[in-house]
Amino acid sequence: MKKQAVYSKNLEGFFNTKSVAVIGASANPSKIGYQILNNVIAGGFEGAIYPINPKDDEILGKKSYKSVSDVPGDIDLAVITIPAPFVVATMEECAKKKVKNVAIITSGFAEVGNHADEEKIKKIADENKMAFIGPNILGFLYTPLKLNASFGPQDILSGKIAFVSQSGALAIALMGWTVMESIGLGSLVSLGNKADVDEKDLIEHFNNDDNIDVVLIYMEGLKDGRKFLNTEIKKPVIVLKVGRSQRGAKAAASHTGSLAGADGIFDAAFKQMGALRASSFTDAFGWARAFALPLPQGEETIVITNGGGIGVSTTDACEEAGIQLLEDVAWTEEKFRKTMPDFGSTKNPIDITGGAGVEGYRKAIRISLEEDKIHCVIVLYCETAVTDPLDIAKAVAEEYRTVERNKPIVAAFVGGERSRSALHFLSQNNIPAYDSVDQAVSALKILHTWKDICNRPKDVPGQEKAPQEVVDMINKIKKEGRSLLLEHEAREIMEKCGVPTPKWAFARTVEEAIEKAEGMYPLAMKIASPDIIHKTDVGGVALNISDAEEIRVKFNSMMTNIPKLAPNAQLLGVNMIQMTKGIECIIGMSIDPQFGPVVMFGLGGVFVELMKDVSFRVVPFGKIEAERLIASIKGQKVLNGFRGMKAHKESIIQTLCSVQKLAPLVKEIDINPLISNDEGSFAVDARIIV
Amino acid sequence: MKKQAVYSKNLEGFFNTKSVAVIGASANPSKIGYQILNNVIAGGFEGAIYPINPKDDEILGKKSYKSVSDVPGDIDLAVITIPAPFVVATMEECAKKKVKNVAIITSGFAEVGNHADEEKIKKIADENKMAFIGPNILGFLYTPLKLNASFGPQDILSGKIAFVSQSGALAIALMGWTVMESIGLGSLVSLGNKADVDEKDLIEHFNNDDNIDVVLIYMEGLKDGRKFLNTEIKKPVIVLKVGRSQRGAKAAASHTGSLAGADGIFDAAFKQMGALRASSFTDAFGWARAFALPLPQGEETIVITNGGGIGVSTTDACEEAGIQLLEDVAWTEEKFRKTMPDFGSTKNPIDITGGAGVEGYRKAIRISLEEDKIHCVIVLYCETAVTDPLDIAKAVAEEYRTVERNKPIVAAFVGGERSRSALHFLSQNNIPAYDSVDQAVSALKILHTWKDICNRPKDVPGQEKAPQEVVDMINKIKKEGRSLLLEHEAREIMEKCGVPTPKWAFARTVEEAIEKAEGMYPLAMKIASPDIIHKTDVGGVALNISDAEEIRVKFNSMMTNIPKLAPNAQLLGVNMIQMTKGIECIIGMSIDPQFGPVVMFGLGGVFVELMKDVSFRVVPFGKIEAERLIASIKGQKVLNGFRGMKAHKESIIQTLCSVQKLAPLVKEIDINPLISNDEGSFAVDARIIV
Repeated sequence: MKKQAVYSKNLEGFFNTKSVAVIGASANPSKIGYQILNNVIAGGFEGAIYPINPKDDEILGKKSYKSVSDVPGDIDLAVITIPAPFVVATMEECAKKKVKNVAIITSGFAEVGNHADEEKIKKIADENKMAFIGPNILGFLYTPLKLNASFGPQDILSGKIAFVSQSGALAIALMGWTVMESIGLGSLVSLGNKADVDEKDLIEHFNNDDNIDVVLIYMEGLKDGRKFLNTEIKKPVIVLKVGRSQRGAKAAASHTGSLAGADGIFDAAFKQMGALRASSFTDAFGWARAFALPLPQGEETIVITNGGGIGVSTTDACEEAGIQLLEDVAWTEEKFRKTMPDFGSTKNPIDITGGAGVEGYRKAIRISLEEDKIHCVIVLYCETAVTDPLDIAKAVAEEYRTVERNKPIVAAFVGGERSRSALHFLSQNNIPAYDSVDQAVSALKILHTWKDICNRPKDVPGQEKAPQEVVDMINKIKKEGRSLLLEHEAREIMEKCGVPTPKWAFARTVEEAIEKAEGMYPLAMKIASPDIIHKTDVGGVALNISDAEEIRVKFNSMMTNIPKLAPNAQLLGVNMIQMTKGIECIIGMSIDPQFGPVVMFGLGGVFVELMKDVSFRVVPFGKIEAERLIASIKGQKVLNGFRGMKAHKESIIQTLCSVQKLAPLVKEIDINPLISNDEGSFAVDARIIV
Repeated sequence: MKKQAVYSKNLEGFFNTKSVAVIGASANPSKIGYQILNNVIAGGFEGAIYPINPKDDEILGKKSYKSVSDVPGDIDLAVITIPAPFVVATMEECAKKKVKNVAIITSGFAEVGNHADEEKIKKIADENKMAFIGPNILGFLYTPLKLNASFGPQDILSGKIAFVSQSGALAIALMGWTVMESIGLGSLVSLGNKADVDEKDLIEHFNNDDNIDVVLIYMEGLKDGRKFLNTEIKKPVIVLKVGRSQRGAKAAASHTGSLAGADGIFDAAFKQMGALRASSFTDAFGWARAFALPLPQGEETIVITNGGGIGVSTTDACEEAGIQLLEDVAWTEEKFRKTMPDFGSTKNPIDITGGAGVEGYRKAIRISLEEDKIHCVIVLYCETAVTDPLDIAKAVAEEYRTVERNKPIVAAFVGGERSRSALHFLSQNNIPAYDSVDQAVSALKILHTWKDICNRPKDVPGQEKAPQEVVDMINKIKKEGRSLLLEHEAREIMEKCGVPTPKWAFARTVEEAIEKAEGMYPLAMKIASPDIIHKTDVGGVALNISDAEEIRVKFNSMMTNIPKLAPNAQLLGVNMIQMTKGIECIIGMSIDPQFGPVVMFGLGGVFVELMKDVSFRVVPFGKIEAERLIASIKGQKVLNGFRGMKAHKESIIQTLCSVQKLAPLVKEIDINPLISNDEGSFAVDARIIV
């Protein structure tokens, strides 16, 4: 989703730097100041490198300076490795030297409760238009510049994936893992305490960096969910957010100090902004590798295999993922028969048989890549004694290069070390290759998902505010010291904000009730009292009232009996609501500590009460996002029609938009039920807390 | 689940063989007869090895014989590699030589339509009490005997997993994979066409083989589902059944020629028999490795980690898997504080911090293994520059050995090649270790699942048959040439088989209807006609009838109007059923081509119509399995109570058992709805096809 946000933070000193100062550089290999300087040098960075250290004149063969102010030329980037107590002063020196970008490796700030120094650093940065990453980080890498400004490993493969990690420890471990798996990185950024540069800044910087195809984020929590939500996403962003479970969120909170909001809301936010959420590293990196491919131009997928078993597994995985396999038996027979022996199968999966060698694969892949009827290709290989997987891999890569990579192709090779080498060969040639068919299918799927995100219509949040009379009403109620609105107040506010309700009336006397009930039957009658929360418990609810006489009986009975059960309750009168049939929905709004106001939608009854089948969106959102919200609940089929009842989607969407007008005014809204039928959707009961 | 089945097929010649004849042995390395003989010799088999070949006197240094009858001693096992046209005659020779076990590598039988020869082979085997695997196989391996009677790779690690594969190609590929992943195998059996020995035979053999801990089956289809269902399972059996999806099942059918039944029924059968179903190789082998561990003696799990991030991920995975993390902050503080620096965390996950070395791990693991309060241990390691993962792995293994492996411990190491070596070290030391936390958690979970299966009460299927009058009734209907029973017939059969129905009556005339309706109001009335299937369409259904007058009106209206809409329909009268409130369920019975009669259960309404939330069991099963069936649907919470209604589970269970009496007599039963309320469960409508 393209947003209008304008990116302003200047990160050029990190990713387009010509000169790096390592503050705290050391000749002692056990010091981080040594490791970082050593990595900068060993990585092959071609710009100026300035060790900064008050004692030494030369470190690792580079002239050393006492302070940044002694450095003759400009410094684009300073990497600070000195102990925490000296960092504030050093930031000031950097500011004076007009260093615009700083990586603060040093720990000992907010993560251990030292917020004061972290805030001072941030203030210096803001006043001097500097941007810094950290503190409390591993550092960062940017392979297009051969810049390794981290104390992590030295060997790293270059590629076009930017990996942004909240955890430095995990980043180190995964650097080793990416090398082992032949996964190339364009950048790795350790975010640490995120006192300044955060995920949004990096995503928006990488939006304009041709060296980066995809951003992969490991996230434990967010400082400001709403800021992140407003990130402009132009390239695929994959988020691995841990703390999904209740206990996991608690563990994340104790680990990072960042507040971990409800996972369902993170999930909603990721969907809303168009980020791709992965649930494991295997998935996240598996997906990231897929973005080396062109996006699919259509749905039709062909599977080439040398083994029936993996063909079946892949068929299963494709059906489960919603990937369409090309089904045109006559056509595939005509095109593929020549690629295989008689006992091969031309029914997709195309089984070129276990005897298939390089030529068989080459032919089948060429056809798959050249035929316009085919939009995506999955190549499977099951290791045999008669073929060398590396030869097959080379043939695949060569064919793919020859057609100029015009459609996505993913591969899964099952076997031992030889297959593993073949997988790595493919990966190095930008063909995403996996050791399981599920991963290959998942990689292809994510390309479709991303394509859908790119093509989805832009949502335009409404700008409407609640009418002034509603603002006044709520202010008045607050002044009275009340927070839970009375039923008729809530219903009135709903109506004034454009949320239809069934016919309803508030009446103080039985005569008023009978008069107002005209044309409302059958109706429900409920006692109106600020003091009674559970109305049913005191006999304060009567359903299916069908005439004036019944109103009289029930009204009088309530006024006589309720004071016996609730002697101190003030009885204001009764609320009457026309009984309405339709599909029961619920709409809620509440304030999430991370994201602010969020709207919830679900189906009523078993769906919400037993299945907890609800979904969220962060306010503000418009009609298009509201429609997606509705479509994201599991039971959404019910809305399309069930046993003769059908929901009125347009009015549900309208309601989802209308309630947002109240976002700045209320703490909580709970419309339950919202009854939706042929004629519209009606807020039968609304609970509002201000 | 322990069943009474008695195992009879003798497989000693495969797994306790003293002499192997390779029929079709060849000196030409391109021949399978060479490869197998070479593998038998190279594998180190210590028994007698007899190459059989009409031409050579010696092959690969072994004396060769013209035929099995020329071999001087006994032959326990013959491996047949000669072309298909000669196999029948060779089987006869083997029979004469009293060879009891044969592996038929040769292809060209049922898989290409040559059923005749396959049947001949089977006949010879049966007549001579021989057991054979294949034809159309890779062969088999049994590492305790160092016997590699396959044309697969030679290098294989020994272990206690038996891998049984329907696909030879996949078995070869996975042999390489297991070696690469340091996974040891006790046996690998390629099943091929399964003309004789099948999964059941092997599982029941391995039940009594101490060299095997767990059986892992790759399955594309079954020849006889019911036979497989009756397998006696004494050790964990992991099944990877492909063809889950509709299209995948079709692909599997075209690949193997075996009929692939509905996946939901396979799923039910696996649950019923106590087999563990995996959905990928990674899971299947990941689980299999876990069975090297002792089963957990309780639920309390501790997580030891050197990184917060992987700790949080593990917490997520545990909560999702239902694994309980020990939560006793004071106790863990007391026990674990001494294992870590001040900034470590003693709240489970126990974070001994990134600086933790061998000693830190050693201490934390020792406490975890020694304290009785802890039942399961998960060790996490995130690769750092300061520790060598192999040292950590060695410490883990040593501590585990020291306490004599008294509780399960699983490990996840995240990192590069060094971590990978450490994982392999742990695997070789029978500590299941994985490169992802999800897999480690899944491995621990499967131990709990298996323990639950071992401890679950034994289900005893009922023996009851349908009463003779029901048998007579159905026979009579069949004789009349009818297959769909009339409503009142179906209801009568339900009642006679012990399935309660609401009060109901069949009436031919309006007077009879009024008379019989006494005490049944409110009731529903439906036209009874063998010719009208959609009664509502012709106005043949009236609901909520509350008195005699209404019966008269509706009856007469039906008799007048229906003949206008359906002039040729024979109208027999009306069925009247008391209206019943409660929770709507459905129960069905049908015949699965693989498994025979199966019973389905689900909740009515949206659950079945929109969510397809139904579950199956294969007939026969008893009350315990019926209870499990009910518990296996997603919406089962509804049965426990929803909006004041609660299902009557006992009577649902009774009904699930009672309908089975009809299994031999009917093709299909569909009780929809079965209404369950405080008083019981009532078959309101039953559709029976005979």
